[in-house]
Amino acid sequence: MGRTTLKILEERGFPVSELALFASQRSAGEKIAFKGKDVEVMAIGDNWDLLADIFFCSVDDDVARGILKDYKGEAWIIDKSKVFRMDPKVPLVVPEVNWDAVERLDSKIVANPNCTTIPFVMAMAAIRKVARPERTVVTSLQSASGAGKAALDELRLQREYVTAGEKMPEDAREVFPEILAANLIPQIGSFSDTGEASEERKLRDESRKILGDETLSIHATCVRVPVEVGHSLSVTCVFQEEVGLKAIKKSIESFPGIKMMEGDELITPLAVAGKDEVFCARLRHDPVDKKVIHLWLVTDNLRKGAALNAVQIAESLV
Amino acid sequence: MGRTTLKILEERGFPVSELALFASQRSAGEKIAFKGKDVEVMAIGDNWDLLADIFFCSVDDDVARGILKDYKGEAWIIDKSKVFRMDPKVPLVVPEVNWDAVERLDSKIVANPNCTTIPFVMAMAAIRKVARPERTVVTSLQSASGAGKAALDELRLQREYVTAGEKMPEDAREVFPEILAANLIPQIGSFSDTGEASEERKLRDESRKILGDETLSIHATCVRVPVEVGHSLSVTCVFQEEVGLKAIKKSIESFPGIKMMEGDELITPLAVAGKDEVFCARLRHDPVDKKVIHLWLVTDNLRKGAALNAVQIAESLV
Repeated sequence: MGRTTLKILEERGFPVSELALFASQRSAGEKIAFKGKDVEVMAIGDNWDLLADIFFCSVDDDVARGILKDYKGEAWIIDKSKVFRMDPKVPLVVPEVNWDAVERLDSKIVANPNCTTIPFVMAMAAIRKVARPERTVVTSLQSASGAGKAALDELRLQREYVTAGEKMPEDAREVFPEILAANLIPQIGSFSDTGEASEERKLRDESRKILGDETLSIHATCVRVPVEVGHSLSVTCVFQEEVGLKAIKKSIESFPGIKMMEGDELITPLAVAGKDEVFCARLRHDPVDKKVIHLWLVTDNLRKGAALNAVQIAESLV
Repeated sequence: MGRTTLKILEERGFPVSELALFASQRSAGEKIAFKGKDVEVMAIGDNWDLLADIFFCSVDDDVARGILKDYKGEAWIIDKSKVFRMDPKVPLVVPEVNWDAVERLDSKIVANPNCTTIPFVMAMAAIRKVARPERTVVTSLQSASGAGKAALDELRLQREYVTAGEKMPEDAREVFPEILAANLIPQIGSFSDTGEASEERKLRDESRKILGDETLSIHATCVRVPVEVGHSLSVTCVFQEEVGLKAIKKSIESFPGIKMMEGDELITPLAVAGKDEVFCARLRHDPVDKKVIHLWLVTDNLRKGAALNAVQIAESLV
């Protein structure tokens, strides 16, 4: 619903002279607080794009498609849906990685990537400054909030039943394909004929587009975990030659927006909730093969994984 | 404590004519039910090995080392500690994979592998009948019970605080290095100088020994997850040539002790708790590289991951 976006705009003192909030007829009239004032949500009508310079579009894919498919306006649209992400005319942007795509493409729509893609491409961009991995294998461990508010509520409800030792009723099992509390679900999104889940495809396709590397070899498995906020990635890169760990560490440390943990210090989803950085820990050579490195990434999927990245796009546009 | 071993011995009708239970002086006198009778635990003394034909040794590493280091007796010892696993004179056995090691080595001690190694080597043995992967990348997602009863109790206690929305006191944080409830901990065991965790090393070293392949390339990251029972593995195999998925599927399906899920059917830790098989789902080619396959394995770590494997060793000895 864009509430995290509003919170981040406030926090970062984004120069908003006037704020207009749009939604469907159903939500019109609701009031949302911004900088101490209540702003009334309007139903989206004709010529909405004349009312502001930058629009954050935080709606379902179908709605985004309906509003934006023939968009010819002058205002910037930062769209968080997946509709335009793979459109070759639309830049798909993580500002720290590929801001040049906005300058290169003649598009007023800028697409915000998937919540798992964002931290992944940031780490990859840092690593690729040293050497390009021949293959990268990723297992993502994604929190319930990545599937939306109803999903997070379902996890919390399920956890109450688990804690009480009670059987879970049907209405506590509507969002996820399996029980998530005290469990893991090895499926995010829908399966294609090849057995790949849509989240795994997005991670590959979006990373290829953002990194401008159409043959990027990334092999992903995405798993939903009983965590509220924070997506974690277990990443293994295989290089053609041995790589220097110090050089990679230095490149990650100096990459904007990534925080490298010291020594054996761990980082967990609970610890990153509410934070802005992509956190990296457990960077190491594989002990039996110096062509292989491992790392562990954790990011607040609601902030850098979504709203913060959108706000950073807006900051760069301004 | 071996209670799951006793339960499985009962369930499978193992031919026990007499049962003797040993523990330290502290636990002596306790009574444990077996086949409807209470059996009193004895303090371990001299000549204990004359009292039975097969011993299941389910004690801490230090205790196992103390009791067994100069063992010269005639009784079989099935040891679940890690003390003898990498001893070249001691067979490390998953009966479905390498029973021949018991016949080949002149040892009365048989070591039971780590709970993550067991399902991994079973799947690898099935896959290697078709082709030997050049590299295998694994992220294991291991349940709290794999760290023992106190660890499982800690997860449950922590979950009560999370569900109640209350701050966690220090005494709910004694076993794990970080909060586990509603979180993930990317560390199992202790770190070496290379940054590898001991669980990751065990998975590689034990798999190499069991599969008899000293250059087996396995790159592991082990993560503790807020699940009670059931270890899951996200596995990616890279082959030198393209491999046929049907042949691999057939080999896994026909491998004893592995249950292959049909089509897109998922398998989760909650669903395998109490079951004997290693469950395999999401077997697929990587859509952009037919030299790569992915699979998802889930196993009850207290049964096939530990006690059941030990009982199967005993059954094979008998």
